[in-house]
Amino acid sequence: MNEIPTTASFPTSKRNRVKRRHDRGSYDHASVFAVLDAGLLCHVAYTFDGQPYCTPTIHWREDDMLYWHGSSASRMLRHLRAGTPACLTVSHLDGLILARSGFNHSANYRSAMCFGMARIIDEPQEKLKALAGVVDRFYPGRAETLRPISAQEAKATTVIGMRIEEASAKVRAKGVADDEEDYEYPVWAGVIPVSMVVGAAEPCPRLLPGMARPDYLSGYAEGARLAQALTDAQRMYEGEG
Amino acid sequence: MNEIPTTASFPTSKRNRVKRRHDRGSYDHASVFAVLDAGLLCHVAYTFDGQPYCTPTIHWREDDMLYWHGSSASRMLRHLRAGTPACLTVSHLDGLILARSGFNHSANYRSAMCFGMARIIDEPQEKLKALAGVVDRFYPGRAETLRPISAQEAKATTVIGMRIEEASAKVRAKGVADDEEDYEYPVWAGVIPVSMVVGAAEPCPRLLPGMARPDYLSGYAEGARLAQALTDAQRMYEGEG
Repeated sequence: MNEIPTTASFPTSKRNRVKRRHDRGSYDHASVFAVLDAGLLCHVAYTFDGQPYCTPTIHWREDDMLYWHGSSASRMLRHLRAGTPACLTVSHLDGLILARSGFNHSANYRSAMCFGMARIIDEPQEKLKALAGVVDRFYPGRAETLRPISAQEAKATTVIGMRIEEASAKVRAKGVADDEEDYEYPVWAGVIPVSMVVGAAEPCPRLLPGMARPDYLSGYAEGARLAQALTDAQRMYEGEG
Repeated sequence: MNEIPTTASFPTSKRNRVKRRHDRGSYDHASVFAVLDAGLLCHVAYTFDGQPYCTPTIHWREDDMLYWHGSSASRMLRHLRAGTPACLTVSHLDGLILARSGFNHSANYRSAMCFGMARIIDEPQEKLKALAGVVDRFYPGRAETLRPISAQEAKATTVIGMRIEEASAKVRAKGVADDEEDYEYPVWAGVIPVSMVVGAAEPCPRLLPGMARPDYLSGYAEGARLAQALTDAQRMYEGEG
């Protein structure tokens, strides 16, 4: 993999500069990648025939390349083959902020918006590498233990890729911020934290006898934070690359 | 509030018909609203000057009207004043599906995509009602206990609204679905469930003495599922309406 210096930043323009609450924005690779790597679910905005679509999907990252699964809807494929502007966003909700005024109610969150040209990955080697990545990035080392992918499956899967041209991260991570004169107002105020938590694994009822849960899933133990498990898996995946 | 029959459905067109895995799609109001009401975080796709933007924000719902906070960036405001096509999506990740082939790896999820024309809500009465709604929809009854909103705050807040013209819900909620011949393959397979869980509330350090946590927050107790708390709050909010 190419090394990206951790101090590097994405360029800024009208497109990615954080406008509302710009004090919460940053543009360095490390901040953007930290948000992306802590999530599995992303939302991608495309425009087709003047209509914006906000599509939820699973993303994975190799350096500054983002990959995700695409719809095989023919209209979208046509646009994606030529390359189409897209925006991929990952967001984590971390807490509800209950202030003493409606105006200061808020949420703690981490989000990253990434801009670039989305295109279909159809070069066979790049596509196979990306398809192994979607497994190994989440479960490092798992891909080679699976029933190998067939040519038909590779063909039936649409992988979309986008090099990040510009990006921003935006984070709110603090307590209640009321107007100074409101702290005397007689109402409860505080933070209600929330997080994505892993539950107890449910083995497939048709598992072969003696098939133990593999070590690479230890980060996804019951009660773990999903964001931490995903971040650790990405680090392991990069270490293997 | 207007009553919407629970058997009602949104019309379908090329725009909202579920293409990839259409067996997972539905179009009835109840299915779409259930996904919307279980979430606080949404992503909105807009297009400005040919560039799609995928913006994370907080949404709330009154019947088939969606509201969210907007950026005050002047370029966006100009488009939004005139009304602009948008797509608001809410997604919940419920589990990771580890299959015996890479191709059958998947996720359990619930998502709703809503299409319509987004516009700035600037009619004063509608805007004030929407601003009370963003508090009461999450914390029923809280708005009237807060320091009242000032004219300046109302002016400084951009509320965007969109009547849902078309929508779809998409749900995967099942175990591993391998190809029949793969069940003999010697690899662990199963579901790793995940959910948004509420943590221990952190009262503001500057709370007035004796200010107890109000009853309307009982659904947000430590260990509760956020989706359930939000769904219950919406039901209470509708009951009050």
